[in-house]
Amino acid sequence: MTSKFSLLNEDSGARLGQIKLKRGIIDTPTFMPVGTAATVKALTVDQINQTNSQIILCNTYHLYLRPGTERIERLGGLHKFMNFNKPILTDSGGFQVMSLSKNTKINEDGAIFNSHIDGKKIFISPEISIDIQKKLNSDILMVFDECPEYTKDKDRIRDSMNLSIRWANRSKKEFGLNSEKMLFGIVQGGVFNDLRKECLSELLDINFDGYSLGGLAVGESQDEMFETVEEITPFMDKNKPRYLMGTGTPGDLIGAVKRGIDMFDCVLPTRTARNGLAFTWNGKINLRNSKYTNDDSPLDTNVNCPASNLYSRNYLNHLLNCNEILASTLITWHNIAFYQDLMLKIRESIKNGKFNEFYKQYFNLLNY
Amino acid sequence: MTSKFSLLNEDSGARLGQIKLKRGIIDTPTFMPVGTAATVKALTVDQINQTNSQIILCNTYHLYLRPGTERIERLGGLHKFMNFNKPILTDSGGFQVMSLSKNTKINEDGAIFNSHIDGKKIFISPEISIDIQKKLNSDILMVFDECPEYTKDKDRIRDSMNLSIRWANRSKKEFGLNSEKMLFGIVQGGVFNDLRKECLSELLDINFDGYSLGGLAVGESQDEMFETVEEITPFMDKNKPRYLMGTGTPGDLIGAVKRGIDMFDCVLPTRTARNGLAFTWNGKINLRNSKYTNDDSPLDTNVNCPASNLYSRNYLNHLLNCNEILASTLITWHNIAFYQDLMLKIRESIKNGKFNEFYKQYFNLLNY
Repeated sequence: MTSKFSLLNEDSGARLGQIKLKRGIIDTPTFMPVGTAATVKALTVDQINQTNSQIILCNTYHLYLRPGTERIERLGGLHKFMNFNKPILTDSGGFQVMSLSKNTKINEDGAIFNSHIDGKKIFISPEISIDIQKKLNSDILMVFDECPEYTKDKDRIRDSMNLSIRWANRSKKEFGLNSEKMLFGIVQGGVFNDLRKECLSELLDINFDGYSLGGLAVGESQDEMFETVEEITPFMDKNKPRYLMGTGTPGDLIGAVKRGIDMFDCVLPTRTARNGLAFTWNGKINLRNSKYTNDDSPLDTNVNCPASNLYSRNYLNHLLNCNEILASTLITWHNIAFYQDLMLKIRESIKNGKFNEFYKQYFNLLNY
Repeated sequence: MTSKFSLLNEDSGARLGQIKLKRGIIDTPTFMPVGTAATVKALTVDQINQTNSQIILCNTYHLYLRPGTERIERLGGLHKFMNFNKPILTDSGGFQVMSLSKNTKINEDGAIFNSHIDGKKIFISPEISIDIQKKLNSDILMVFDECPEYTKDKDRIRDSMNLSIRWANRSKKEFGLNSEKMLFGIVQGGVFNDLRKECLSELLDINFDGYSLGGLAVGESQDEMFETVEEITPFMDKNKPRYLMGTGTPGDLIGAVKRGIDMFDCVLPTRTARNGLAFTWNGKINLRNSKYTNDDSPLDTNVNCPASNLYSRNYLNHLLNCNEILASTLITWHNIAFYQDLMLKIRESIKNGKFNEFYKQYFNLLNY
């Protein structure tokens, strides 16, 4: 079976690549907007497409709880359900079991917890998670893992990691053979480099289509995160995509690309947009700030997006002040367009052997 | 000065016409989506345009309070402020002074009241209202009137009506001569036909560019409203547009067109959309209803709109259940597209001399 991932260029630690899937090509490094409940909040599919997003992420945990697998499977999966024809990655639910659910009990079989919506008791195992993801019909699936909270307790992290490795084996078995989809393993081990290497080694033996770094972006500092990434990426398979889950700010992305990461997802550009925060090439803008009542310039002329170019900061400030839905739509639209513009410029710099110049020019500026 | 309104055909009481304004042509009968705070709630301007809306309405009262006239005037008016290039009608604020503000005191000069947002004391006179509307740079302006609440107290209605006539005179004087814009008078008189005729007669003497019926859709029955419309329209100027303010349901529109009305506005299709109510050619649909969890058909295949055709009722039900912004966007988009499709079909039927057939086929069906 030929690999779906091609490594096209390397430059100053950064990698340019391409993932070819049935529903489309993904140029890496790539950013995946988050569509938790089968909608990238506040955007139509047409608007998502206009941002040049090539893949989005949906959350298995959320969709399993609401609307439930059956209503999505009946339509043939998420693409038809939400009218999005490009690739979709689904996470496994492991992270949400840790961060959202209540009274969670983990045993060898899986995780038992209470739904954060109605308190209903729910069980998810590796087999169930993969089965749900198959029914959601996503293009990239993630193994079900245990995500411990951020801790320096190495024994706790080791036990959890070993459980996640056993679950990764079961996930792979449940996934079976499928030449159209990809299954990613998740490297755990907290901020302990020896554990991460041990975990990665086990996962490489299982042989996944891609490898992600989990258990980061859960409270550690950016320096700790970068160090952890930097220590592990040299041991990863060069010819498989590398995905840093749940990250991050523009600075996080630039720094992680420099350390060999290919894929990212984060709620930051969508969630902060709904509070009036816009990302631009000149820094962050809080559009609720009263100074924008006097600013008739467009949100951002550097990004090619209707939301960035056609509406003044004055108008966006007014919409936010009136709690108008259009504020969420326009600022989300701009922020995703900005993130995709950032990824495009990162890819161009790697292609041209100028990533280090890009890094020097933008890392500090955008590391807000 | 040539009239901006052309009466093109009459059929079974209904009128086909056209208003030509600097920023575009309006085919009548027409429906104006409401953009209270300089945004048709939940829609981008591109989405509004895709519904074939030819004119929208914005609210002087709301915009005067927030963001204030200065921030809009600075950009040259509402069109630039909200990025909408087609005609805009602004109301005068009279209706909101009655329905929203607190501690309202009316005297000969104007209305003193407390803002519904922050309680600030505000004064609006006919001169101030027209001045604001000029600064908003709308294409059709409304005279400032007193809108009494629904009552059978004829003396109260007569006094109010006479004040509104004096204010109409002052509004016209303040408007002055402007060949690019239109100023509409507002016929008051409650449900008393003799008062309405008296009011209309006075307004015709002042000579406005169009005439609207105010003080309706404030609590009277549909029969009362239709009777009031039916009694007054024969006395109105045939060659000026006739606007029934604040109406209404699809049935209201069909019934009022039959009685000679050319223009409508209403928050109904936008406001109810945010609660999950969709209007279709087969009746109303409450998409929150659990039966739609099992309905994979598109919202409505009869209306040519992406929101109507591309998303299942199952999906829309899910979005509503999760309070997703996209639910408001898609259902609002559909509802406005449906209203414009209704107006288009009404116009076609009048053009083809088949309005009575249309009325018989659809009035009862759509009078929900």
